[in-house]
Amino acid sequence: MLEPINKKDWRYRVHEIIYEADTPMGKLFDIILLILILLSVIVVMLESVARIGLKYQNIFLVIEWVITFFFTIEYIARVISVKKPIKYIFSFYGIIDFLSTIPLYLSLVFVGSNYLLTVRALRLLRVFRILKVTRYIGEGNKLRKALIESRAKIFIFIFAVLIVAIITGTLMYLIEGEASGFDNIPVSVYWCIVTLTTVGFGDITPVTPVGQFLATFIMILGYGIIAVPTGIVGTRYARNSSEDYVHVNTQSCRNCGIQRHRDDAKFCHNCGDSLNKENITEVNEE
Amino acid sequence: MLEPINKKDWRYRVHEIIYEADTPMGKLFDIILLILILLSVIVVMLESVARIGLKYQNIFLVIEWVITFFFTIEYIARVISVKKPIKYIFSFYGIIDFLSTIPLYLSLVFVGSNYLLTVRALRLLRVFRILKVTRYIGEGNKLRKALIESRAKIFIFIFAVLIVAIITGTLMYLIEGEASGFDNIPVSVYWCIVTLTTVGFGDITPVTPVGQFLATFIMILGYGIIAVPTGIVGTRYARNSSEDYVHVNTQSCRNCGIQRHRDDAKFCHNCGDSLNKENITEVNEE
Amino acid sequence: MLEPINKKDWRYRVHEIIYEADTPMGKLFDIILLILILLSVIVVMLESVARIGLKYQNIFLVIEWVITFFFTIEYIARVISVKKPIKYIFSFYGIIDFLSTIPLYLSLVFVGSNYLLTVRALRLLRVFRILKVTRYIGEGNKLRKALIESRAKIFIFIFAVLIVAIITGTLMYLIEGEASGFDNIPVSVYWCIVTLTTVGFGDITPVTPVGQFLATFIMILGYGIIAVPTGIVGTRYARNSSEDYVHVNTQSCRNCGIQRHRDDAKFCHNCGDSLNKENITEVNEE
Amino acid sequence: MLEPINKKDWRYRVHEIIYEADTPMGKLFDIILLILILLSVIVVMLESVARIGLKYQNIFLVIEWVITFFFTIEYIARVISVKKPIKYIFSFYGIIDFLSTIPLYLSLVFVGSNYLLTVRALRLLRVFRILKVTRYIGEGNKLRKALIESRAKIFIFIFAVLIVAIITGTLMYLIEGEASGFDNIPVSVYWCIVTLTTVGFGDITPVTPVGQFLATFIMILGYGIIAVPTGIVGTRYARNSSEDYVHVNTQSCRNCGIQRHRDDAKFCHNCGDSLNKENITEVNEE
Repeated sequence: MLEPINKKDWRYRVHEIIYEADTPMGKLFDIILLILILLSVIVVMLESVARIGLKYQNIFLVIEWVITFFFTIEYIARVISVKKPIKYIFSFYGIIDFLSTIPLYLSLVFVGSNYLLTVRALRLLRVFRILKVTRYIGEGNKLRKALIESRAKIFIFIFAVLIVAIITGTLMYLIEGEASGFDNIPVSVYWCIVTLTTVGFGDITPVTPVGQFLATFIMILGYGIIAVPTGIVGTRYARNSSEDYVHVNTQSCRNCGIQRHRDDAKFCHNCGDSLNKENITEVNEE
Repeated sequence: MLEPINKKDWRYRVHEIIYEADTPMGKLFDIILLILILLSVIVVMLESVARIGLKYQNIFLVIEWVITFFFTIEYIARVISVKKPIKYIFSFYGIIDFLSTIPLYLSLVFVGSNYLLTVRALRLLRVFRILKVTRYIGEGNKLRKALIESRAKIFIFIFAVLIVAIITGTLMYLIEGEASGFDNIPVSVYWCIVTLTTVGFGDITPVTPVGQFLATFIMILGYGIIAVPTGIVGTRYARNSSEDYVHVNTQSCRNCGIQRHRDDAKFCHNCGDSLNKENITEVNEE
Repeated sequence: MLEPINKKDWRYRVHEIIYEADTPMGKLFDIILLILILLSVIVVMLESVARIGLKYQNIFLVIEWVITFFFTIEYIARVISVKKPIKYIFSFYGIIDFLSTIPLYLSLVFVGSNYLLTVRALRLLRVFRILKVTRYIGEGNKLRKALIESRAKIFIFIFAVLIVAIITGTLMYLIEGEASGFDNIPVSVYWCIVTLTTVGFGDITPVTPVGQFLATFIMILGYGIIAVPTGIVGTRYARNSSEDYVHVNTQSCRNCGIQRHRDDAKFCHNCGDSLNKENITEVNEE
Repeated sequence: MLEPINKKDWRYRVHEIIYEADTPMGKLFDIILLILILLSVIVVMLESVARIGLKYQNIFLVIEWVITFFFTIEYIARVISVKKPIKYIFSFYGIIDFLSTIPLYLSLVFVGSNYLLTVRALRLLRVFRILKVTRYIGEGNKLRKALIESRAKIFIFIFAVLIVAIITGTLMYLIEGEASGFDNIPVSVYWCIVTLTTVGFGDITPVTPVGQFLATFIMILGYGIIAVPTGIVGTRYARNSSEDYVHVNTQSCRNCGIQRHRDDAKFCHNCGDSLNKENITEVNEE
């Protein structure tokens, strides 16, 4: 009868360490995890740099194994310590945690064919570990909220951009043709998006006067369109983060004569006198 | 006497299928149409890719004929089922529908000269079919509204950009000259717009210190100007989708003479007098 | 004694034609002027295109003389018909009008040396005629107002950009050096502004890892800075063009229960009932 | 007993000249300082231009010594005239002033090895003198305030951009590879930031269809993200410079318990009770 309690107790402690940040152990755990995540991402990035990758191959491998080992334990711990393991496993972070753990194990399977694209892909999967960091960005919610709330508008916006890009792209293909790099419509559409978004790589550029004229038109269009996402997200975002401000009107207090009270003010914030709406002087600034 | 009713009835059913989306048949019709539109656009784009275009030439042709056949029926159906066929034929969507249908028929005429630009142009007309999709974007209205409402401002903005581009372009042509790609004023103006819109292809770039200095000036100018369309559309858009503001018009109350009532106002917000629409003086400011 | 009256009368008619657009003559005058301005600008631009310039040299010259002739008359007419000629001559448009008229006359003086830079500059002066068009853009005022009102902020913004560009430019020069095109600090500063404004020509690009890292930093900085002019002008602009909207609060009418009355509403816009502030139910949505 | 007074008096005068701008001497001092700062920055920039640098080497050296001399005096004066010298020395401007003064002295030490990078770096330190100008930009505060207030949001934004850049960068590296310049992940990440920020140098560009498709995706993403910093800073900035809104804090009224009073509120706007700052419960949300 003691055992289950122990177990429960032990489990509880694990859960506390992993999921709660306010206990000293929990803090320590989070910090170690963060460091390991960033370390592993840095390793993946440096490995890709030829001369560094080869030189420190072994060191990287060791680091990788340490990280993988720790992640493995973490993953298991998370699975066993939560009430609904299945729910966690198939949650966003559950999948991320899993994908962050397996690559090295998989690379063992294909150890012979170490340079195949598939393997490289698998090994690079580790970069997605960076997403684990998002766990620790609480403040990002407002941003995420703004984006989610206006996803419908964003979708339409992107769709509009695509329609414009397809049509203008086709026209550019027709006007410029193979000569100046507009080899086919998909490429022209790609070019149009590069231009509409004001990125402008310059790998493909119109050379004919007509093409340049149309390009000018596309650019100004893109320049105008840029206002829209700003309007969409920006506004929504502004509203979400506008809780620290209140609208004030121009009614003035009879007693102290001060203006700019909040719309729902019943008493003057300056002298505390009642703002009896009947006998205050409305000053309409608009 | 039965016949016309039948006809009317038959016509009515067609109209219902084509123009109403809430009946099962209507839904099905819309879905098929959407798929065919996107399919046809993809075909046009892939056809332009040399190696793919030649390889699957025949398959594409078949698909094209199927789509064209369907579109032909659709077009005819639309024409006969509406009350005012002429009105539809010369409406925006009427023209789009027509242009989406004819290309293949026309290409038959010029079948001998299959690679002439003219024919290619006609075949590419099919890309405009994508515009038919806009029929199904209900949420785009707010966006369209925002753009339409501020078209006057946008026009002025573009005009201002052009004036700046013409003058700075002329100066750049004078300073840089043929040596660094500023071969003539039109090209220089093109370059200025590329720069003002912060696209910056880099196909033409100033090389002289003076030219680079002026370029710097143009860039910062463009960077500042970017704020304006955002201000224009963004604001208007924000307003349209904001709940804290209502649009007010310029009708004035007969009783107290005050203006700027909300569009749906039945009574004056100032004196409570009825705003009998018949006998108020409309002052259209816009 | 008759003569001065005649003169005054004659003068008055000229003034009416030139300065007033609501008389038929005035309208005609404005339209002709607009056409000539645009025509002359097009001529200047086409002249600069080598092959066109030489081919139609004579036609262009004739057009130029016609335009110049008309502008000369216009200028004289303006001078004599205004009350304060001096004031006009040294006004913005006075100078523009003068500069728009003289180039061709001046080119006669240097007719021998037809290809000197000075002369080309003089002839290109005619492009500034485009500024005469601004006379007819009444709606541009709001825009101009927005820019003027926030000029102080814009100046500081530009100044800040310059400081950032000078410092980062110096660092880039130090890191990259001559090898990768950062030949000297002015050029590096030029590159920094190209990058900060997100134009990115790509004529000069960092090649060293450290340089690319710093570049990344500069780009994100510029990306953040872009928000500021939008905030500055955009906001100001929004406010200037916000006269068509009023803020509404959430108080509800006792009688019809409708909400969202304008802040200064005394009576319900829906039922005309008095909005006696004491006994309405405040609904704070925030 | 006289001496200390004199000293104090003398010190006081110095302090007045250096730190106060409203006395004639103070004004003069500031103007001279500004000129010298800008002059020195110009010298540093021109020196870096090879042909100019060598030609006017001596003149530049003289100017440098004059400026350095003046700055030395200024620095000493500032140190001795302030009440808390230590505090000044380690303040932002204290360090700037120090770094602005030493370079030339240090260059004497390494005079033999005049072209070592270290020395060049030291000499270029003088560019940071430009930061001394910020002392004179009073209007910049609002801007600075806007940026500081939203630093948390900006940090998250940058962090989000980096996460996106790292993941997409890795994918691009996988898709494009060495062939098209995506030599390693760091470079790919660099490219992604170049693209996300819509700078688009074009030194590296995708060539494979898949790569171009992903690039398109990244561009539109970046185009959408651009809205966010605008939303963040822009809004905050707008708010700070808007008269229709006041910042409210989270102190709650003891009497009615309502929160969100304006910062300068003396009395509760709801119940009119005094907001005695001593005994209210501050709830700091930020």
